[in-house]
Amino acid sequence: MFYFIGLGLGDAKDITVKGLEVIKRCSRVYLEAYTSILTVGKEALEEYYGRELILADRDMVEQEADEILKGADVSDVAFLVVGDPFGATTHSDLVLRAVNAGIKYRVIHNASILNAVGCCGLQLYNFGETVSIVFWTDSWKPESFYDKIKRNRDMGMHTLCLLDIKVKEQSMENLMRGRKVYEPPRFMTVAQAAEQLLEAVQNRRERAEEPAITEDTVCVGLARVGADDQAIRAGSLREMAECDLGAPLHSMIITGHLHPLEVDMLRLFSSPEGLRGLKMTDSSTYVS
Amino acid sequence: MFYFIGLGLGDAKDITVKGLEVIKRCSRVYLEAYTSILTVGKEALEEYYGRELILADRDMVEQEADEILKGADVSDVAFLVVGDPFGATTHSDLVLRAVNAGIKYRVIHNASILNAVGCCGLQLYNFGETVSIVFWTDSWKPESFYDKIKRNRDMGMHTLCLLDIKVKEQSMENLMRGRKVYEPPRFMTVAQAAEQLLEAVQNRRERAEEPAITEDTVCVGLARVGADDQAIRAGSLREMAECDLGAPLHSMIITGHLHPLEVDMLRLFSSPEGLRGLKMTDSSTYVS
Repeated sequence: MFYFIGLGLGDAKDITVKGLEVIKRCSRVYLEAYTSILTVGKEALEEYYGRELILADRDMVEQEADEILKGADVSDVAFLVVGDPFGATTHSDLVLRAVNAGIKYRVIHNASILNAVGCCGLQLYNFGETVSIVFWTDSWKPESFYDKIKRNRDMGMHTLCLLDIKVKEQSMENLMRGRKVYEPPRFMTVAQAAEQLLEAVQNRRERAEEPAITEDTVCVGLARVGADDQAIRAGSLREMAECDLGAPLHSMIITGHLHPLEVDMLRLFSSPEGLRGLKMTDSSTYVS
Repeated sequence: MFYFIGLGLGDAKDITVKGLEVIKRCSRVYLEAYTSILTVGKEALEEYYGRELILADRDMVEQEADEILKGADVSDVAFLVVGDPFGATTHSDLVLRAVNAGIKYRVIHNASILNAVGCCGLQLYNFGETVSIVFWTDSWKPESFYDKIKRNRDMGMHTLCLLDIKVKEQSMENLMRGRKVYEPPRFMTVAQAAEQLLEAVQNRRERAEEPAITEDTVCVGLARVGADDQAIRAGSLREMAECDLGAPLHSMIITGHLHPLEVDMLRLFSSPEGLRGLKMTDSSTYVS
């Protein structure tokens, strides 16, 4: 059997009892290490599970999938993914290869940032499409995330923004010279994401577009959701650009229409003036 | 400390190691028993956790919240929720009461149906607003879910439909006579949800509306996601109305635009003619 096992968010103990039992009996255990991270590293997981883990980077999963699946028809092999195995990335390619090779597979689910963000008090029902915000470069500043947020807000929906992770990236120079030298990993912060969003807001303003988002739009910044030291901050987009939520991973929510109960919850995570931008549109709806 | 602990989906062993450790040391443990169910009941959980559980129905959570929170400032109390504690329902009222009473709280996350549906191969990124489909009665047949699905499909997005659960409902007669006699619990099946959707489609057709959904629209029926005997079926809406996916809980997805890799995954769960309704709109998109 080939097991896809979610590790949840936080640390080693966020695995499910079922997942841990499977890991202990598998012949090989892979750790997918490019779509997300926990607050603890590979060594801490190995110690807690009592098993050696094989680090699976993107190249390995894409190019050596058959190697990963090898023997899973006669013994048990596990593939560990931070969050839920089918959360941010569906590992569809691995599933399809397994099925085609006559290998049975099973999924052991866990929390994903896509549902855990509910802890800030915003109703998951009221979220529209999830967007990704990538690191801008000097020459590449895509704004497609802005249009998706606008579309969600036009319908009153909140938007969860997943922030960029750069792991095992090569500098342009090393890439061109074919040198397998990698840059240190980078994880986009809420402040960086807010900066890019503010720049997009300004660009739209210069093009005289009707503003879908302003500096006062209420946002929520989240860091290390599920960990002991998780941080949640609610406030204006301007405040987000100045906040320091500490170590990765960060995510950001751009709110849509807010129910009074959602506002009450956000106040738990805001400064006294943090939700100043809110205007009541009717007795049951706020918008910023 | 007051702990909100997600039980995940499936059975007793789908709890996280962290969650189980907390349960074992709490002075009281409540089981929220009205927004979802596992494939095992309260007794099986009590046996596995080695703890007595106090069943918390909606009345209790809404009317005796202070009783639930009592003593959580000096000892540990746990409140267990199937799925993620802030998944389908945010227990915001309990959080706010705890904070107001000076009680610290923590959330231990777990899988929710909102992210676990990714196991069918549809990208969670491509889901729009989640909708609820409630049991129609002879005199009350709300179609608001149809409009939300239409709105999602217009944007190419998939729609997760959460299906109605009726627990501790009273018959009209018992309600009027003030008799606390409850009907057996009812859980909407994929077939029942599809029947209601087909009726809504027919109603719109009679009103000469442009059809957003037809009998051939590709849907996915899911039952007992995360359990050993989970069932996933992909096919037309017409097929969904005739399928029997067994015991609860069921959910249904109405697809939007499909990426070829999503179609490949859905084929794992469909009959040979199940995805007949698919038409290619361009080289990377199918729609039904």
